[in-house]
This record gives sequence, structure tokens and C-alpha cells, in this order.
Amino acid sequence: MYTAVDHQFMSQALAEAQNALYLANPNPRVGCIIIKDDEVIGRGYTQKVGGPHAEVQALADVKSKGIDPAGSTIYVTLEPCNHTGRTPPCVDALIAAKPARVIVAMLDPNPLVSGKGLERLRAAGIDVRCGLLESESQELNRGFISRMTRSLPWVRMKIAASLDGKTALPNGQSQWITGPLARADGHHWRAQACAILTGVGTVKEDDPTLNVRDVKTERQPWKIIVDSKLETPLTAKVLSNPKASGIILVCASLDSVDAQEKRKAFEAIGVEVIAMANTHGKVDLTKLFAYLAQERHMNEIHIEAGFKLNGSLLREDCVDELLLYYAPFMVGDGIGMANISSLTALDQRQDWQIMDHSLFGPDLRLLLRLDKKTI
Amino acid sequence: MYTAVDHQFMSQALAEAQNALYLANPNPRVGCIIIKDDEVIGRGYTQKVGGPHAEVQALADVKSKGIDPAGSTIYVTLEPCNHTGRTPPCVDALIAAKPARVIVAMLDPNPLVSGKGLERLRAAGIDVRCGLLESESQELNRGFISRMTRSLPWVRMKIAASLDGKTALPNGQSQWITGPLARADGHHWRAQACAILTGVGTVKEDDPTLNVRDVKTERQPWKIIVDSKLETPLTAKVLSNPKASGIILVCASLDSVDAQEKRKAFEAIGVEVIAMANTHGKVDLTKLFAYLAQERHMNEIHIEAGFKLNGSLLREDCVDELLLYYAPFMVGDGIGMANISSLTALDQRQDWQIMDHSLFGPDLRLLLRLDKKTI
Repeated sequence: MYTAVDHQFMSQALAEAQNALYLANPNPRVGCIIIKDDEVIGRGYTQKVGGPHAEVQALADVKSKGIDPAGSTIYVTLEPCNHTGRTPPCVDALIAAKPARVIVAMLDPNPLVSGKGLERLRAAGIDVRCGLLESESQELNRGFISRMTRSLPWVRMKIAASLDGKTALPNGQSQWITGPLARADGHHWRAQACAILTGVGTVKEDDPTLNVRDVKTERQPWKIIVDSKLETPLTAKVLSNPKASGIILVCASLDSVDAQEKRKAFEAIGVEVIAMANTHGKVDLTKLFAYLAQERHMNEIHIEAGFKLNGSLLREDCVDELLLYYAPFMVGDGIGMANISSLTALDQRQDWQIMDHSLFGPDLRLLLRLDKKTI
Repeated sequence: MYTAVDHQFMSQALAEAQNALYLANPNPRVGCIIIKDDEVIGRGYTQKVGGPHAEVQALADVKSKGIDPAGSTIYVTLEPCNHTGRTPPCVDALIAAKPARVIVAMLDPNPLVSGKGLERLRAAGIDVRCGLLESESQELNRGFISRMTRSLPWVRMKIAASLDGKTALPNGQSQWITGPLARADGHHWRAQACAILTGVGTVKEDDPTLNVRDVKTERQPWKIIVDSKLETPLTAKVLSNPKASGIILVCASLDSVDAQEKRKAFEAIGVEVIAMANTHGKVDLTKLFAYLAQERHMNEIHIEAGFKLNGSLLREDCVDELLLYYAPFMVGDGIGMANISSLTALDQRQDWQIMDHSLFGPDLRLLLRLDKKTI
């Protein structure tokens, strides 16, 4: 059904989509390539939110060269939208351009619109095919798919540890377990996320900025701090630049006068405070993730937390992906990865699946997903 | 200096040597290929101790076909021996065969004989070259090289753990952390060793047989149990078949009447007992490894022990190589990899180097060596 040339051009469209990796959130990462007489006449990828989608960007590229896109073949990594969001529907722009063929990698995962964009294109007499390099495009948009199909973000937990699973020495020292190449790779994953989530424990102990530094990005992810009792110091580095990205403190309750006063102090420095309690008076993590997807349109959450919060997140089944870095030495006594309930039999274990294992300098990176995760 | 054809034939000689992996101990693993008119006319590899070496085996193969080896090229992965050991010198057999050329991968690492075999061949007018695929041959003979150059065996520590570095649940359950493919790979490494070493703790808790099972081998490694106070039960599975391989119990002292009586009971079932104490009244591990290399001609020791003995071995700097299997789940509280002294600063760490990372079914295997290990 697809030729080797089709594969080649769709790969190029995916490479365009890759350019949107740090940029497109909360929109999907989409790339588009327009071909006429076997030559690429236009390229585009999803711009920053509110900016043009990939198809419109690629058509503008064609027009800027004075070329008529009529009769062309358009490769696009996700079904063009058929609805007006922050921008007008892409299908209208495509139909107006009169291409002969449109080849699409994956359907829009939003069940309300999925397939409708392709229908409109077909109704306009365009030869439309869908499914070429589908899983590659899905892999790029795991967070967007998760939000659209589960109303939850894709949640990734990053942990850097020694060979024997220790994230810090008994005295708390953890900087740096891993080397510069592994840390730079960590920034690559931070940059992809809509938000970086941590706990008040990590803020108090390590005082991290949680900025993206080692990779070039136009967008800083949001910062979310789980802090039941609003104990984050106003001087914490993570709060120091609320203009670069939004900052949300999540506490258990804002009912007391004390909490209301703290809230005012945080809001005065540009930090948002929300409350979301479970029946134990702690932050309801499951509810928090549903809120982040449904109300805040967050696709992908990157967790860099400590032993306690990691444990709660794993116990409450909030995590879709583990990103583990192992440095090649042993620590002995020290702080573990996550405070999960002890197993009493090996068959109680929750199995993950190793998706990738790669070296970054002297360190090993493992990417794991839940064994039966279907999305 | 070497042609592509030389590389090809030496690779075939190395493949022959690989056949000796489970067999040759304490001799080196050596392979030999004999070529005449661009055809392989003979092949051989080191046989079981006391049997023929690779060169003699390959020459016998040539003769069995009624071919005259005169004028041939002989590829051999380690310098032919020039001394009478359990078998006559291989150089004599080679000289008698009148080859035109002998190409050797590595010199004999024994400083007393290194280079002398090649000298004898050259003196007989044979064109001799050495160094082709040297590091591949060294890799096969790491244990033999260690014994010859350091008077110590090559010591490998195998640990199977969860992602968070736990080797067993808090209740001691450890069977099975890893899956069948990882366990079969573990048997491949057991089979290569001269001996498998464990501690009395593991014997009492897990009652392992420490046999090689999942791979085919004609030789079972020795079993060595570090047991300061001779507490190994006479009924332990590891003692059940002393005829398949030798078994050595290593205690701290045999001075007491009680110890002498226990020794007699062990000896009665075919188990050897030796004493080797350090100044703390524990087994002197450093001395033990020197003894195993120097008195027992052991090249390679494979350790499968528990938290305590692993810790002592690492603290006393006895370990050259870590063979770690990680199963993709977390345990939480549980038993750690090794009881090593806690670090108080990250710069006290001992760095290892990841030599290989591979999946075996769902599990990850890491092979690590000390960062500055030169042999």
C-alpha cells in the first residue's frame, strides 16, 4: 500500500515533528512535508501554543517560495484538525491548497473528532491514507494521547541512583550521583514535559530550581510542588522565577486562616496555590493528575521527587513510565528509590517492561513502562 | 601486516577456543586452525585437563584425514607452549609438522615462558607473527592471565536484584527475582568458572546446589563455602555430590577439638576443610584467593553469595567484575546487594565501568569491571 518513498517522506515528516518536542505542549507534536514532482516544496511543525499547526506552517513555506501546492502529496504525522480551537481548522487550509494526496501517520486520538478530519478531506476528493509509521507518531504523542483517551497525563518518574538503588548518601548528599551526560539527558526529558512535579521534601532538602538548562528550549515547563501543609519556603529556588513558567503549590486544605495567609504570601510572589485533599488529609494525587489533564490541559508530567512522594505515587498507581539512571558504583546504606509497601511474596510484584537501555557516559539509563500498558 | 583472510581464519580459531570455555580450566582456552591451499585442513581446541592442547588436537585432525601439514599456515590463539607440563611441548609437535607460517593472537601470559615458544618456532625457520585479534583472545583468558600475572584468580561477583537493588524480600524470599533466561545465562557464567564460591549464610538460607544445570558441560566447577565456624549442615544440598566436583569448606580455625571433629565428619562425606584466619578471627579472603590461584591453580572464581559476604569481598577489594541482573520491578524494604561501608561523601565511591548491558527476557544484565583495572 505504501512505497519506500512514502516511508522516506513520512520519516522526514516525523523528523519535523521532533522539532516540536519541547515546543508544542499542550498541542500534539506534528510534522508535515509537502512533495511535488518528487521534491520537498514545504516543511512545517507545530509551533508554540496559539501559533500555526504543522500543515499550515508547511503550506506557508510552499507559498513563500511562490510554488502552487495544487496536485502535491502531503505527509502529515497526525490527522489534520477539523475544528476551530486557538487556530482555524487545518482541513480548510488543506482543501484550499488542492493536494492530490494526503498521507497521515495516525488518527487524532480525541474520540470526539477522530476520523472527521480525514472524512472532510475525502469528501473534497482528495486521496487520503492513514496509518503509515503510526506507532512512531504515537510514541511522540504519548502524553497527548493519554490526555485525550484517559483524561490523564502521561506520568514519568525520573530517578538517579547507584547500582544498589540508593538515590542519596545517609547524610542526604545526592549531587551528583550521575555524570554530566546523564544529567543533560535528564534535561531533555524535563524539556518535553508540560510540568515538572516534585515534593516539599525535595524542595527543602535539595533546593532545586527544576529549570530546563542543558538543552535549548523556548518554553520552560510548569513547576508543581506537592506540599500538603504549605511548608515550601518563600525563598526556595524553585519559586524564584514564576514568570518563566507557572508554578503551582498543591496543598491538602486551604480552610484554616493560617493556610489562607500562606496562600496570600505565595500569590504575592506569583505562585498559584490549590487544595486537593484525600480522606487521609494528604494531597489526593489521583485527583491532582485528573485535574492537571482536564482543567490545565497537561499532557506529560515529569516527576523528580524523593523517597516519600515517589512511594506515594507508585502505591497510588499514578506512574506510567520510569526513567532510571544508574551510576556505576555502590553506596551501601543510603536513601532508597521509593517508599513502596514491602512485598511479602514475589508474586505481588508489579512488573515493568524495559523499553530502552542506553549508556550516557559512564551511566546507564533505563526506560520502563508498565507491562500491560496499552497506550 | 595481516590480511582480511588472516582475520577471518583467526576468528575461526577464536571460535574453536570458545568451545573450550567450560572445559579447559585450569588451562587457557585456546583454538587452532590449520590452512593449506586456502582450505581449513584441521581444527582443534584445548581439551579437558591432561588431554591434548589445541595445536596437537588440530594436527591430529589433519593427520586423521591423511593430509601432510608441511607448508601450511597455522592460526593459534595463544602462544604454543615450550615446556613439558601434563603434556609434551606443543612447539615440538608444530616444528615436526613443518608449517610455513604460524600466526598467534597473544603471547603466553606466564612471565617465565612468554615469548619462548615463538623463539623456538622462529629458530626452526618458521615465519611467526603475533598480535592478531590479541584482545579477543585475552578476553577469553582473563582468568588464566590473572593467575599468571597477579598470582590471583579473576573474581566475578554475580548478584540478581530488583530495580531498587534488593536481592530478597524482608522475609528472605529470593527465588526467583529474575526470569528463566537470566538464570540460564547465570549458569553459562557458572560453567566457565574454576569454582563457585558462596557463604554459609546463603547455604543456610537458600540451600542452593550451586551446580551448573542450564547449559551443557562435561565439567562441574569446584564449590567453595566460606564458613568461619563450620556451621554448614552436613545435609546441605551443596555438599550432596562431592564426586561431581571438589568441595572446599573454608573456616577460620581448626585448632579446637570441636573443629577437628567437624572436619572429620565433613571429610567422611568427601568434603575438604581448610583454615585461613585473619587477625579478626574471620576467614582471610585475600589470602584465600591467593591460595586458590597459587596452590589450587584456579583461574576464575564465580561468587554467588549474600549481603554479608558480598560486603566483605567488596570491602576487602577482592572483586574484579560485577555481573548484575536487574529484574524490572521494585521491592521496597528488603535485603540489599552488599554490606559495604557507608559513604560519607560521594567522592569516596569506587567507580566501576559498564562493559556490557543486555536484556535476557524481561531482565537486564550488566557486566562491570573496576574502572582502572588493567588486566
